[in-house]
Amino acid sequence: MTIAEESIPNVPEVVILRLPQYIRELTRILNEGTDVASSQQLGNRLQVTSAQIRKDLSYFGRFGKQGRGYKIHYLLKELRQILRLNQEWPTALVGVGRLGRAIIEYPGFSPQGFRVTAAFDSNSRQVGETLGQVTVQPMSQMEKVIRENGIRIGIVAVPAEQTQTVINKMVDCGINAILNYAPVSCHVPNGTKVRNIDPVLALQSMTYYLDPRT
Amino acid sequence: MTIAEESIPNVPEVVILRLPQYIRELTRILNEGTDVASSQQLGNRLQVTSAQIRKDLSYFGRFGKQGRGYKIHYLLKELRQILRLNQEWPTALVGVGRLGRAIIEYPGFSPQGFRVTAAFDSNSRQVGETLGQVTVQPMSQMEKVIRENGIRIGIVAVPAEQTQTVINKMVDCGINAILNYAPVSCHVPNGTKVRNIDPVLALQSMTYYLDPRT
Repeated sequence: MTIAEESIPNVPEVVILRLPQYIRELTRILNEGTDVASSQQLGNRLQVTSAQIRKDLSYFGRFGKQGRGYKIHYLLKELRQILRLNQEWPTALVGVGRLGRAIIEYPGFSPQGFRVTAAFDSNSRQVGETLGQVTVQPMSQMEKVIRENGIRIGIVAVPAEQTQTVINKMVDCGINAILNYAPVSCHVPNGTKVRNIDPVLALQSMTYYLDPRT
Repeated sequence: MTIAEESIPNVPEVVILRLPQYIRELTRILNEGTDVASSQQLGNRLQVTSAQIRKDLSYFGRFGKQGRGYKIHYLLKELRQILRLNQEWPTALVGVGRLGRAIIEYPGFSPQGFRVTAAFDSNSRQVGETLGQVTVQPMSQMEKVIRENGIRIGIVAVPAEQTQTVINKMVDCGINAILNYAPVSCHVPNGTKVRNIDPVLALQSMTYYLDPRT
C-alpha cells in the first residue's frame, strides 16, 4: 500500500493532471503583479471553462468567495500542498546516453524541486563519469542508493527494449512514480504511476490534421 | 481552412491521439517476429481494452476479420496513411538555447520522418552557428524560410514570456502544428494544433500519489 489514505477521496486522475497547470498559470499571473484571479481569468488563459476550474478545485475545499476571485498566494500554497510540492523530490535516472544527459542538464527540473540525485547505466563506459553534480553508477548499486536516499521517483531514458526490465527493477527498489522517456509503453503494478514523455507520438498525432497543400 | 475535408468525419481527437501508440506497439510486435496480432494482444501491451482498440479502428474501416487478428503489415500501412506519416515532415525550431540544442540532437525524430530543417533564434550570438545539419537563422528570416520550404510544423523552445509571440508568428507564417516545449500554455486559432511537452507538469501530477513514508 503506497498511496496515502488521504489521497484517495475519489479525485479523478484527470483533475490531478490539471492541477499542475493551474499552479503554473497562477504563478505566472502572480509574477505579472496580480494577486487575485477569477476562475474566468484563469480559464481564459488555459482555454478551460471557468466551471471546470471551480469543479476541479471543489474537490479540495473552498478556495474563494463567489464573485471575489481567488487569492492567488493562498490558492497556490494550498495546491502545492495538495500535490506535495512543498518539498524537494530527489529522482533517480537510469540511462545516461544522449537523452539521459539532456535530462540531467534540463534546466527546468531543479527550480521546481525535482533534482536528479543519482544516475545509473548498464554500460561500464559511462560508469564513473560525472555529469553536473551526479556521478554515474553501475546498475548493481541501484537498489542500495535508491533505498538509502529514500528516492521515490525514477526517470527512464534507456532504449525501448530495456525499458520494461528497468521499470520492473525501479519498482522493486521502491520507486512509485516513473517519468518514462523511452519510446515504449510499460506495465507497472497498481500503486505505481507512469507518465510518458514522447515528442514523436505528439507530432504523429498532429499530422492527421495537416491537409496536403496543392 | 487548413484542415483536410477528408479528416473531418467526426473522429474524436482522443482517438487520433491513440493511433500513434498503436503504430508504435504494432511495429514492436512486428519486429519481434509476429505478423498477426489480435486486438486483445495489442490491448494487453498498451493497457487498453480490446473493445477500445476495435472501436477506435472502426472509424477508419474494417481492418480484420472477427477472430483472425489484424495483419500487422497491412494495418500499419493503413494507419500510417491515415496519419499522413508516409512522407517526410520538415520542422522549424525556434529557440536554440540548451533545450533547443537537445531537440536538434534528439535521435528519435528523424527515423520517424520528422527533421528539424530550419532553426531560428532572436539572439544574434546564436545566429550563424551550425548545429547538426542546421544553421541558426535570425527571426527576420522565419517567414521566408518557412514558406519557401513548405514547413507546416513548428517546435518552440523559447522562454515562457516569449512563447505566445513566437507561436503567433509561426501561425502567421503558415504553421499549423506546434510542438511546445516552453513551460506555458498558449492560444492558437482554430485549425492549428498544439501539443505540449512538459516533464515538470508530468512529475507534479505524480507526487500527489506519493505518501509521506514514516
